[in-house]
Amino acid sequence: MIEAKGYAAQNAETPLAPFQFERRDLKPTDVQFDIHYCGVCHSDLHQVRGEWGNSVFPMVPGHEVVGRVTAVGDQVTKFNVGDLAAVGCFVDSCRHCENCEEGLEQYCLNGNSQTYNGYEQDKKTPTYGGYSNVMVAHQDFVLKISESLDLPAVAPLLCAGITTYSPLRYWKVGAGHKVAVLGLGGLGHMAVKFAVAFGAEVTLLSTSPSKEEDAHRLGAHKFVLTSDPEQVKTVQNTFDFIVDTVSAPHDYNMYLGLLKTNGVQICVGAPPKPAEIGVFGLLGGRKSIVGSNTGGMPETQEMLDFCAEHNIVSDVEVIPMDYIQTAYERMLKGDVRYRFVIDMATL
Amino acid sequence: MIEAKGYAAQNAETPLAPFQFERRDLKPTDVQFDIHYCGVCHSDLHQVRGEWGNSVFPMVPGHEVVGRVTAVGDQVTKFNVGDLAAVGCFVDSCRHCENCEEGLEQYCLNGNSQTYNGYEQDKKTPTYGGYSNVMVAHQDFVLKISESLDLPAVAPLLCAGITTYSPLRYWKVGAGHKVAVLGLGGLGHMAVKFAVAFGAEVTLLSTSPSKEEDAHRLGAHKFVLTSDPEQVKTVQNTFDFIVDTVSAPHDYNMYLGLLKTNGVQICVGAPPKPAEIGVFGLLGGRKSIVGSNTGGMPETQEMLDFCAEHNIVSDVEVIPMDYIQTAYERMLKGDVRYRFVIDMATL
Repeated sequence: MIEAKGYAAQNAETPLAPFQFERRDLKPTDVQFDIHYCGVCHSDLHQVRGEWGNSVFPMVPGHEVVGRVTAVGDQVTKFNVGDLAAVGCFVDSCRHCENCEEGLEQYCLNGNSQTYNGYEQDKKTPTYGGYSNVMVAHQDFVLKISESLDLPAVAPLLCAGITTYSPLRYWKVGAGHKVAVLGLGGLGHMAVKFAVAFGAEVTLLSTSPSKEEDAHRLGAHKFVLTSDPEQVKTVQNTFDFIVDTVSAPHDYNMYLGLLKTNGVQICVGAPPKPAEIGVFGLLGGRKSIVGSNTGGMPETQEMLDFCAEHNIVSDVEVIPMDYIQTAYERMLKGDVRYRFVIDMATL
Repeated sequence: MIEAKGYAAQNAETPLAPFQFERRDLKPTDVQFDIHYCGVCHSDLHQVRGEWGNSVFPMVPGHEVVGRVTAVGDQVTKFNVGDLAAVGCFVDSCRHCENCEEGLEQYCLNGNSQTYNGYEQDKKTPTYGGYSNVMVAHQDFVLKISESLDLPAVAPLLCAGITTYSPLRYWKVGAGHKVAVLGLGGLGHMAVKFAVAFGAEVTLLSTSPSKEEDAHRLGAHKFVLTSDPEQVKTVQNTFDFIVDTVSAPHDYNMYLGLLKTNGVQICVGAPPKPAEIGVFGLLGGRKSIVGSNTGGMPETQEMLDFCAEHNIVSDVEVIPMDYIQTAYERMLKGDVRYRFVIDMATL
């Protein structure tokens, strides 16, 4: 076994703390890499605090993982030692269901292996995430990264990036479309960058006037302060798509009113409790409310390649490992622009 | 003006009763036709009872209207005296908004003129519906019907027919798709017929075991009793589409669970109060919940032509005009297979 170290939550109440654990010995198809950076996703916070009710402890969080390959199994063809490598939200899946065969491992019908707070496909070996120094995974679940991008700023692409890229591609968002992005956080700032890159006219919807300047800096063409009914009125029935990145409870019906006929509200965040949705609001203009969860392996690689070609990365604040509790507290206050990334050299 | 007679509600409390009123004199582009049959839509009941809060009295209901042309204006090219003719849910629209220009008059951005309980485009002349002996409308809002179909059974195509045909076409439902139809009433029985005609594998979902035999007679390949959890379990994650025809409150989340990845729940009915929808259920399989409201003029004509070609009509119970209150009471109990149609010769 490979000795590994990281930061773990031992239970839902105590802070993350140093933790020793083991990674499996390299199988012939496995890639081993040193973790250089790991993004801090909002879901990390929910999971370490046991807020989604399915937490497995001890828990080493982190599913935005980038680093450099240190060893490869005999049958590995995709990577050489020294290559950059990345792991996202899952490290394995059943590989034979209808969805896996289509490269939609995020929707594996037999349950994929989440990168942390999950189990390997044996359904009993716990997985440990990227708040650690070393990763081992099957080459099919390890992604290639360009040397041309700023490495810490690449990390959040593995979750925040693909989560917004995937639905924009699936619903073929592009030139001629008016797209609203609801919320400017980790997901929202990537949604703005991608929608702009795809040629759409992008409006940022936010309750915080302080986000306006950043929205424009990130490429948004317009900004609407949703706490101002007069501003909201000006965008009634105007958007082809709304990318809804908000996980807190919010008024879906108000936003459905901003969609034009045939408009689609794409939810990538979800409040923990059911949303009250007036179905009449959907009928009135053949509107849709849809959900989308991360992306499959082929599309994640496509997204990373697209980012390299178009020089797209996340806006990040690099932090040392022992800053994590403070980072969580700041995230709860929305005080991050737009993703914390842990420098694993500080572990 | 043209003297007309019909049945009207004078207010939300009293029963429908005979009513004299006037239709406009024929304009050069108008078609006048004698109404032979008019379908009884569930919405008629809601509107005459003022349950949707926007009722205009006196109200002559009826938006599934068929008959034979008795006069045409000088500029009418589409109809000759003696032709069959039909009017559906609206009799005019602004004709120049983006949606009208695309033939989506059902979503007219300036408000179309509902066939009854609405106003002409002058926004002040009330419209009166098909529970009457004569109709006058612009030829662009009058539809052609084949002589080959049973006329009373054609009437419900103008609302129940197009309301189910349109979304099935918009979402390109056809061979290779597994389609569930939720609820077997006026809309549901047409959804089954169309989905079968389009080549889909159709399952009827109902809480009434008594609907099973009819479901198969109408062409459904399977029947699932949704009050039986064991039967529901067998269809988890199996449908590409659910056509949800239910207007009463119901558990959307249970039905979302029956959709496969990328599945779409198409709502053509809507409960009066907001539905509680768990957005996580959408995210988990890139699922959609969508609404659709009737259809535009070109698509309604396409639907009628399709019905003529494929010999599709509604299952109807023809009633005399003075049976309407009893018909409403029976509708409230679900005691109609599957649409009442008023024989206007009995007026």
